[in-house]
Amino acid sequence: MKLLEPVRIGTMTAPNRVLVPAMVTRLSGEDGFVNQGIIDRYVRYSAGHVGLIVVEATAVHESKSGPLLRLSRDDFVAGHRDLVRQVKDAGPSKIVPQIIHFMKVARSGWRQTIDMLEERDIDGIVEAFGSAAARAREAGYDGIELHSAHAYTLSSFLSRRNPRRDAYDGRTLEGRLRMFGRVMARVRQMVGKDFPVGVRFLAEEAIKDGYALPDSQRIALRMAQLGVDYISLSVGGKFEDAVQKEGSPLYPYTGYSGDRCMPGEQYPPLPHVHLAAGIKAYINSHGFDVPVVSVGKISDPADAERLVTEGRADIVGMARQLLADPAWVRKVEEKREDAILRCIYCNVCKQLDENFKLVSCFLWPKGFTQAPIEDLSKDAPRWPATGAGLKASVEDGVVKLVWSRASGDVAGYDVFRAEADGTSKIVEAVKGAKFADKLALGGVGYTYHVMAYDGTGRHSPPSNVIHVETPVPAFGETGAAHA
Amino acid sequence: MKLLEPVRIGTMTAPNRVLVPAMVTRLSGEDGFVNQGIIDRYVRYSAGHVGLIVVEATAVHESKSGPLLRLSRDDFVAGHRDLVRQVKDAGPSKIVPQIIHFMKVARSGWRQTIDMLEERDIDGIVEAFGSAAARAREAGYDGIELHSAHAYTLSSFLSRRNPRRDAYDGRTLEGRLRMFGRVMARVRQMVGKDFPVGVRFLAEEAIKDGYALPDSQRIALRMAQLGVDYISLSVGGKFEDAVQKEGSPLYPYTGYSGDRCMPGEQYPPLPHVHLAAGIKAYINSHGFDVPVVSVGKISDPADAERLVTEGRADIVGMARQLLADPAWVRKVEEKREDAILRCIYCNVCKQLDENFKLVSCFLWPKGFTQAPIEDLSKDAPRWPATGAGLKASVEDGVVKLVWSRASGDVAGYDVFRAEADGTSKIVEAVKGAKFADKLALGGVGYTYHVMAYDGTGRHSPPSNVIHVETPVPAFGETGAAHA
Repeated sequence: MKLLEPVRIGTMTAPNRVLVPAMVTRLSGEDGFVNQGIIDRYVRYSAGHVGLIVVEATAVHESKSGPLLRLSRDDFVAGHRDLVRQVKDAGPSKIVPQIIHFMKVARSGWRQTIDMLEERDIDGIVEAFGSAAARAREAGYDGIELHSAHAYTLSSFLSRRNPRRDAYDGRTLEGRLRMFGRVMARVRQMVGKDFPVGVRFLAEEAIKDGYALPDSQRIALRMAQLGVDYISLSVGGKFEDAVQKEGSPLYPYTGYSGDRCMPGEQYPPLPHVHLAAGIKAYINSHGFDVPVVSVGKISDPADAERLVTEGRADIVGMARQLLADPAWVRKVEEKREDAILRCIYCNVCKQLDENFKLVSCFLWPKGFTQAPIEDLSKDAPRWPATGAGLKASVEDGVVKLVWSRASGDVAGYDVFRAEADGTSKIVEAVKGAKFADKLALGGVGYTYHVMAYDGTGRHSPPSNVIHVETPVPAFGETGAAHA
Repeated sequence: MKLLEPVRIGTMTAPNRVLVPAMVTRLSGEDGFVNQGIIDRYVRYSAGHVGLIVVEATAVHESKSGPLLRLSRDDFVAGHRDLVRQVKDAGPSKIVPQIIHFMKVARSGWRQTIDMLEERDIDGIVEAFGSAAARAREAGYDGIELHSAHAYTLSSFLSRRNPRRDAYDGRTLEGRLRMFGRVMARVRQMVGKDFPVGVRFLAEEAIKDGYALPDSQRIALRMAQLGVDYISLSVGGKFEDAVQKEGSPLYPYTGYSGDRCMPGEQYPPLPHVHLAAGIKAYINSHGFDVPVVSVGKISDPADAERLVTEGRADIVGMARQLLADPAWVRKVEEKREDAILRCIYCNVCKQLDENFKLVSCFLWPKGFTQAPIEDLSKDAPRWPATGAGLKASVEDGVVKLVWSRASGDVAGYDVFRAEADGTSKIVEAVKGAKFADKLALGGVGYTYHVMAYDGTGRHSPPSNVIHVETPVPAFGETGAAHA
């Protein structure tokens, strides 16, 4: 598989083309130091053979915030050195921190915006990125990633809604690109030419008057011109449409652009691939071959492989799927794809983040704050001797399924559905032995089965398969009865 | 060209595969009657050989509103009969009205939502659709279109944010589909099996927690099951994210979902084709061949042709492009594509609509309320004997172009830009003899030329061609200077 082949990223070679993007964990303390919870989270990815690990957003500055890693002073370096060492001891992954600058947000609803920055503030931010990058190199990281996405400072300069009217003028592309250019130049000065510097930025802002592909293609091209070593894409996650919650500071990801940033179950798989493909094609056509990372609801190994073989992306990023199962790559290598704990995009992780709680996965056994570690000596979940006993009934167009509980280490049940002769897909994962399919459509035949799973993705055999066929409701008669 | 071949839509055959979707004109009076301005607008499309004309949203009920056509009483029929006759006298087009029900919106910010409807209100709406459909048939229309898109009543039932908890339950797909089912059944009862009934609905709601492709595929399938004769898609245009303007009733299309409904210059061409393709593939795979209409920033004949030959859509809808040049189809038939007045998606039409003003096109000569009629006996615009004299300068990364004014009937100038050896594309249309390219990127060579056009799309010869190459700014030095 091309997905499992090494990939060159500047001067580093990642062992494969799978990347875990920076994800908020809320595992660190407010002091900003690396702790054991943080280390445990990232060691899982390395043990799972993820090609490139991007550590959660790590502040380049000292601004007050909730729990957040920092590289804003030299005394933070030791903790990161420990993190890097333990990650490398556990597996083949390369690892870089995502370094971030963000503006102030108050509980009152007030938030600082980039038009409030004086030139000397901007100089300070440029310096802070440079110093943090140098500290990352000192800590032994394989490179760094500049956070230029979502609602944060560098992204606000790139935005089509950048309100500045000076040398960083939001009305011109060069004005919007100036801040990133300065940061990149300073970082390169501090870390040297041989240290990989990646970037994450938005392929689409997904806000009113925000930018879309024509601008992001040009932004990516500038990043390539400036010598970034990889370009990782995201979508949305902005303040402009965030939903204000009484007494809490405004939080990006709570509006529509947040939906698009972490597309949930209402979206199709791979909803953002066309953006990565469009950006890659554009920079390639201008003579640059900087690797482009596509993300967004990718979980199926075949989809991921197709992305890279079809040349729509160079690297495949998976956040929620790798949170659920950090051993995804290893299982694909071992051809044990059936043992992957499949993300269902229920976005419980997103909700935890939005509520400032420790980020865990709904699929893990209750109370777990880290992905469970696979124990092959233990049995997979199994059905009772009498079978799974899957049964269905239909009520007001909703297909209701019930089945017998499985025994063993059961963390939950995957519900599979197929339409007509189509292939079976997981439609939901549930903790109890029942499920209501509220998106069933009358007039279409559905085939269901369930499988129990433990917290590491080991599945029971499939249950019995049942076929459900409901009629199209007779609206004509209903209408007539009402008339 | 397949685009120009006839297409079967239920019992009607449209002369080609180009459709003009319903567009607000604000040409009618508040009385709801057809007037000469309305007739002039639609006659243009027929004279221009548009395959299927969808007349602007026409109310099925008597609710107060701004200028809006109506079919809510029998005395509205005569005006529509006149409209249909004049349209048919002018050309080969088929014509259907889009019939709409909408809820109350107050200047105070209050708006009625579907959870406020009693069962008897719902019965009344179902009846009103049936009666209006019957009147449309009486008026001589070739069919009707049910408006089930954007912020209006039928769409609110289909929405994933439908707040009802009864038989129209927003938590189940069948609950959301029930209202459309009743309306379709009643309309069919009233117009008979041989009268084409199309529908317009949202392929994606583009609001927080709104639905996307997986739901819209199933909604389209239900529509096909119920015997709709065509499915026309749109995106967004919702109240949920509309921007409240002091003293005005809340208006959809003012938020991000409005941007997505009428994607402006910040979007790439054809940003929504994947949605039409996904829906068409889905219903086809379930054995239905109802024609699917794709819309959204389609203006190039080659793009439109590719859409239908590649099977991504059956019919191509163009709103803004056909507003600009209602003779688009005829010019393609006559192989005079260069004489098309090309929409630049400046969205002046959208702004006029948002401000409750008569909707016209920025490209038309000043003061025109209808598209000018081509007069081939007149000369096209021409450059002075000394040439166009196109010159460029660069200032803060912005490429500034100036040229000599053309003579003749000049309505404006199209500015063409090519990157490297790429093909030239119109980047802007301007009224004066200058243009500032604010999206130019240093380090990329651009080639520019301009052409003057009259209000019917006749162009002057190209100006002289100039090549502009600006360097990538030296951020490193700048950064150092600031440090």
